[in-house]
Amino acid sequence: MKTATVKGTRDYLPREAELRDYMQRQILETYRSFGFRQIITPVLEDIGNLNSSEGGDNLGLMFKVLKRGNKLTAAIANREFESLADMGMRYDLTVPLSRYYAENRAKLVLPMKCIQIGNAYRAENPQRGRYREFIQCDIDMIGVDSYWAEVELIATTATALNSLGIGAFRIRVNDRRILKQLFLSFGFEEDHVSALCVIFDKMDKIGVCGIERELSDKGFYAAACLRMLEYVRSADFSMGRCMRIIGASDYTQNIESIIRAVNEISGAQYRCEFDISLVRGQGYYTGAVFEVESLAYSGSLAGGGRYDNLIGRFLDESVPAVGFSIGFERIFDLLMEQNYVAANGRKRIAVFFEGDYGAAFQCARDLRRDYDVSIFARPKKLGKFLDQLRRDGYTGFCMAEAAPELTFFTPEKVKTVPQ
Amino acid sequence: MKTATVKGTRDYLPREAELRDYMQRQILETYRSFGFRQIITPVLEDIGNLNSSEGGDNLGLMFKVLKRGNKLTAAIANREFESLADMGMRYDLTVPLSRYYAENRAKLVLPMKCIQIGNAYRAENPQRGRYREFIQCDIDMIGVDSYWAEVELIATTATALNSLGIGAFRIRVNDRRILKQLFLSFGFEEDHVSALCVIFDKMDKIGVCGIERELSDKGFYAAACLRMLEYVRSADFSMGRCMRIIGASDYTQNIESIIRAVNEISGAQYRCEFDISLVRGQGYYTGAVFEVESLAYSGSLAGGGRYDNLIGRFLDESVPAVGFSIGFERIFDLLMEQNYVAANGRKRIAVFFEGDYGAAFQCARDLRRDYDVSIFARPKKLGKFLDQLRRDGYTGFCMAEAAPELTFFTPEKVKTVPQ
Repeated sequence: MKTATVKGTRDYLPREAELRDYMQRQILETYRSFGFRQIITPVLEDIGNLNSSEGGDNLGLMFKVLKRGNKLTAAIANREFESLADMGMRYDLTVPLSRYYAENRAKLVLPMKCIQIGNAYRAENPQRGRYREFIQCDIDMIGVDSYWAEVELIATTATALNSLGIGAFRIRVNDRRILKQLFLSFGFEEDHVSALCVIFDKMDKIGVCGIERELSDKGFYAAACLRMLEYVRSADFSMGRCMRIIGASDYTQNIESIIRAVNEISGAQYRCEFDISLVRGQGYYTGAVFEVESLAYSGSLAGGGRYDNLIGRFLDESVPAVGFSIGFERIFDLLMEQNYVAANGRKRIAVFFEGDYGAAFQCARDLRRDYDVSIFARPKKLGKFLDQLRRDGYTGFCMAEAAPELTFFTPEKVKTVPQ
Repeated sequence: MKTATVKGTRDYLPREAELRDYMQRQILETYRSFGFRQIITPVLEDIGNLNSSEGGDNLGLMFKVLKRGNKLTAAIANREFESLADMGMRYDLTVPLSRYYAENRAKLVLPMKCIQIGNAYRAENPQRGRYREFIQCDIDMIGVDSYWAEVELIATTATALNSLGIGAFRIRVNDRRILKQLFLSFGFEEDHVSALCVIFDKMDKIGVCGIERELSDKGFYAAACLRMLEYVRSADFSMGRCMRIIGASDYTQNIESIIRAVNEISGAQYRCEFDISLVRGQGYYTGAVFEVESLAYSGSLAGGGRYDNLIGRFLDESVPAVGFSIGFERIFDLLMEQNYVAANGRKRIAVFFEGDYGAAFQCARDLRRDYDVSIFARPKKLGKFLDQLRRDGYTGFCMAEAAPELTFFTPEKVKTVPQ
């Protein structure tokens, strides 16, 4: 028997579980205060739905659930080894949301502002901040095609991140359609745009030389490549420069509206900036894309964008939609590394009894008005046990059968979130 | 593409999701106030661990996860059709708890009082209150072999149930070992005890005649059967009658201690009673078993017992443990049928704007101190939309660009939990 968790999944000790619960609570309550409503979808989805979804690489990382009973026997007997599974574990919360929208549309208030907080599963090679079982925290606004949907999602997500006490961040915004215009203006063809996006996305990692190499590998027009490299070398990815090349359009106006509105309402808390180098991997984005970048830690804290062709897939229609997802596991790992402890407001104390459990219960009942109270039979090695409790975050203890007076521990120095 | 959820799983509309969240929160906070600590284990477990667990019928209902990549190819090529899966979705939270205890014991404070609230999965034929994806809410106390562990679990669970406002209930308690003594006293053999437990467990459903039939089908000693039927016919399942037959023992004393202590601390809120007809299905119980029975609705609201041989399985040792599990899905269905609405404390209002989103944001920001506030662009058919919002639980609305004054809806009559 194996006592370790299966690869890429984790057990959480009480302190970790309490921090995760606290984080989810902060995020959920912020989302709700902005009028978003929680929905819940199953972890399991029909394998056909998942296989025909636009999951890209994620489809290859899917955990599939074996058929059962006669259906399994039949699949094996008929050597249908491609059909051994009838369900899959969801790899994100967006495919379930599309199905949910199609199934429940008549019962929903539209525009729909919804919250999904739940587990998703991918058979990835685990690394720090990336696991095979992970929580996704998504908000989506369905049915609004105007820029204010983007602004609402950005403001809501930024407020949720602030409530977690993870320090300063900035929000980068781009639009795939602007990027496309730019590529075309260099002289590339429409067919090249996807491949160019992939190359552009790697700029941070591979640098200008890397981009030069990748462009020449693909055999694009030399003149277009030269113009692109000149643009990249300048390292000026501002809106102004971009518009000097491609001119103003509905797309640039839309992005400017988003950025202006966000910066008006954000005050000094965070800034929103145009960044043509922001691509974001998923192919399903149709308009603005955005990402929250921590100023204190490397990497992204949240990401999202507009995807007008995905939610309506089950209905074969286009439904405007914007989504934003917080990188829950990344933030949890960051807070744990810094030894943060959930500040849930109630202190925890222990009540000991030697013979009379009833006395301990009465004593605990009285104290429970102000504390979380745990009853224990008095252990033989009381001092050692008290040390354990103190390290485990207990505030103090009392003996039920003596005059029940609370003794407080000298507090450990812990950081609590939010600051 | 299929828009319905996969068999036995459910989508939850906002009102349903909010009630589920509220219920979980009430249960979690009650558990915590009694000093229990939350832990989290993965949904996926090693298939070998699950297959060798004492899950009984549940093993046949397991959702198994297909191997991936070369391992799947190899399993198919070698015709190892029994080894197509390397993991399974947990069918309860007890197997993960045993593994967790073995893996993390050195980091835990013992006795360990733990909470697990999470999804479990079984390929059952779905019916009301029984689903293929369902939430389990468990508390367990590990490392205490005295009766007060049972009392703590019963008091904690009863308090949690009271916080959900599901009406009056009583707690039935029994001990498998007492039942065994009783069967032996009738003249049955030790080998018959398990089969007799199964028959006894069906008493509610099949009645005395059913029991008579089942006993004769099994071909037990006629004299023993006669004595058993006489006992059943009397319908007196009290502790007194039982002790007149089998005499007092450590087991009866233990049960009496539990019942006395629970009734001392419960006040008039609920009663705890001995009931020899309580068997509970799981074979792993080693001592007291208990069940919460609603006085208003048929069926059980929670169940549990002592299982001293399960938690230590991974360590090959006996570890005293008691667990109690709330029937979350059953209670959720009951509350939904009665049209209950989560009382989460914050009222929800809508803010409309016509052109100036920034004005709406400012207006919403001010109102957010007291309300959950959702911004909408003013729809063309405002009256129809307001009707929808009112039915969806909104309290009122305001127009951002007018003098922002709140208009309250005439409230719908809804029941909120707890009462």
